[in-house]
Amino acid sequence: MIYFDNAATTKYKPEEVYKAFEYYVREVGVSPGRGSYQLGIEASRMLYKTRKKIANYFGMDNANVLFTKNSTEAINLFFEGYLKQNDHVIITCYEHNSVLRPLHKLHEEGRITYSVITREDLNLSPDEIVKKYAKGNTKLFCTTLASNLTGRIVYSKDLLKHMKDKGITTFVDSSQGAGKIKISITSDSIDYLSFTGHKDLMALPGVGGLCCKNKPDWKPLIQGGTGILGDSYINPDVFPEGYEAGTLNMPAIWSLNSAIGYCIDNFTVIQDKEHALMRYLLSELEKLSNVIIYDKNFERVSTVGINVAGVQSSEVVKVLDKNGVCSRGGIHCAILAHEALGTVETGVVRFSLNYLNSMEEIDTLINVLNDCR
Amino acid sequence: MIYFDNAATTKYKPEEVYKAFEYYVREVGVSPGRGSYQLGIEASRMLYKTRKKIANYFGMDNANVLFTKNSTEAINLFFEGYLKQNDHVIITCYEHNSVLRPLHKLHEEGRITYSVITREDLNLSPDEIVKKYAKGNTKLFCTTLASNLTGRIVYSKDLLKHMKDKGITTFVDSSQGAGKIKISITSDSIDYLSFTGHKDLMALPGVGGLCCKNKPDWKPLIQGGTGILGDSYINPDVFPEGYEAGTLNMPAIWSLNSAIGYCIDNFTVIQDKEHALMRYLLSELEKLSNVIIYDKNFERVSTVGINVAGVQSSEVVKVLDKNGVCSRGGIHCAILAHEALGTVETGVVRFSLNYLNSMEEIDTLINVLNDCR
Repeated sequence: MIYFDNAATTKYKPEEVYKAFEYYVREVGVSPGRGSYQLGIEASRMLYKTRKKIANYFGMDNANVLFTKNSTEAINLFFEGYLKQNDHVIITCYEHNSVLRPLHKLHEEGRITYSVITREDLNLSPDEIVKKYAKGNTKLFCTTLASNLTGRIVYSKDLLKHMKDKGITTFVDSSQGAGKIKISITSDSIDYLSFTGHKDLMALPGVGGLCCKNKPDWKPLIQGGTGILGDSYINPDVFPEGYEAGTLNMPAIWSLNSAIGYCIDNFTVIQDKEHALMRYLLSELEKLSNVIIYDKNFERVSTVGINVAGVQSSEVVKVLDKNGVCSRGGIHCAILAHEALGTVETGVVRFSLNYLNSMEEIDTLINVLNDCR
Repeated sequence: MIYFDNAATTKYKPEEVYKAFEYYVREVGVSPGRGSYQLGIEASRMLYKTRKKIANYFGMDNANVLFTKNSTEAINLFFEGYLKQNDHVIITCYEHNSVLRPLHKLHEEGRITYSVITREDLNLSPDEIVKKYAKGNTKLFCTTLASNLTGRIVYSKDLLKHMKDKGITTFVDSSQGAGKIKISITSDSIDYLSFTGHKDLMALPGVGGLCCKNKPDWKPLIQGGTGILGDSYINPDVFPEGYEAGTLNMPAIWSLNSAIGYCIDNFTVIQDKEHALMRYLLSELEKLSNVIIYDKNFERVSTVGINVAGVQSSEVVKVLDKNGVCSRGGIHCAILAHEALGTVETGVVRFSLNYLNSMEEIDTLINVLNDCR
């Protein structure tokens, strides 16, 4: 089986990540912040260490990381807490539905408005984009690190800086590409960043979170047991515990600690391998007439979206599946990007690779696509 | 090390539960509802099977189960979605902060009111309780299955039936005791039930959920990618996918499938063992003068809350920890119960056992307590 759906989740994790998870469940196994016995304290220490590691990884020298179940929850928590009545938000046309939908819900409720930077306007200079989109009530700018549909790296330090200079808070959704692209909250003018463990960071599923340059002072999304200050009738005003009601998924958090270590230690090897694979894949795809490659000429993560002219994406995926190739077709939880590319009707066939794939697997893919046409 | 903090989380899971998790991450490893390739379809099948298994376990013949990260998220999701402006809610004084806090937040926002059935009034007949607490605008009755503080089983089929007969929707928080006490949504007049995987159900952490007698028609808590109908600007109006935005923690869900099988297969053995341990623990505690046992004469799960007269609970826990016994002191995320028992100042020392504990471990505990006094 050839797995080209790493943008949905990385199926294969580094062996040490599985081991870290297993260590936690077998050797520790208790919840942090609950019991004050030695093992409970050790669990709390492991939790803090992981906050610190993630914060450092994303360029912060604090430990301002709150954990959620995935990036989607982190984004919802942030928007619900941070945005106030009549705020205006700027997003790019490449945002995942996890950014679009919570904003659109707030919009439908009459709480906020939002504008979408079109694909064409992303070619403008940062200065021009800010001039065109920023309003007096613009509170927030949201950008994905990379498109989950085409792999294009959308993240622009320049644009973030220009937004920040205009007094606009900045947010990055790093779900696609974190672990593969170096980003720094401190240096790159980022205020908030959401991440998910199970994709490029290669942790086990069930953990994501929000990095906060400064500790938030807004309300949490979820109320409940926080392990501390249990006598208050609502969550205590304490960061991060007040934002993490309920039992944390500590084994997954510990696997993320290990996974981030792996990403750091193997950064160049992984990047070189993935770049080589992507160069080869793109060059082979280009040789196929009737294949449309989206965002071909942009810097990218290890994802590419294509279509075979005249064939529905779902049909292509079906043929690939029969030949042992796992890819994804249809609409990819990023309706704005489909609209921008004109692929709402056809969908898109997406191949998302990682460093564990091989040139031979790409050859197989190309052979099947050749037969598809 | 003697582990008496099973009410926080069951530290030791059945071997087959670890294996189920490992099977998922190593042999399947993909996300359900995303790719339409064979392995993706198999993942979706495993997800559906688990919904069905949980639904059946809780006495439903459908598969109306939506997954969250834990019980706390399920409760927040339910209250936020279900309760409308000016609704009145009845809860018991034994509710966990995961029930109290989201309700109190809604109350502070001027959206709902709530009443707390006092410890004394729980002695009244169901008929009298309904008469005393139900109002014209009472929409919902919430009861915990068992107290996380004292172990008392609070759940009463009779009271649920009387509330239901009065036209009040019923909700059970089964976090403490699910897997150990047989409850049936269909037979016991329950409309909604929240559960968590990592406590008595003995799954790995990171999964909980909401069982719904009828499919909900209210709004989800979290907006984002749902894997289906990606072209809609908000979550599609589809149950359960529309309530589960973001990547599900499928390995934990699959571990829960296995864990529920274990609970069913070993129900009597586990119950007999735990009953015997609790009988022994209570009888030994009773022999110690100066030890106050809370809710001594009620039916209970394998949890008991005590205090040593004149000693702070945190001090007792410290001495126990030095002797290798893990217990929990202080305030236990159930402030209403502490108020009802008069233990806000002292806290409570909690011992929560399960079938893997032994009489010898209880002897050790009693010896240390003897020295504590």
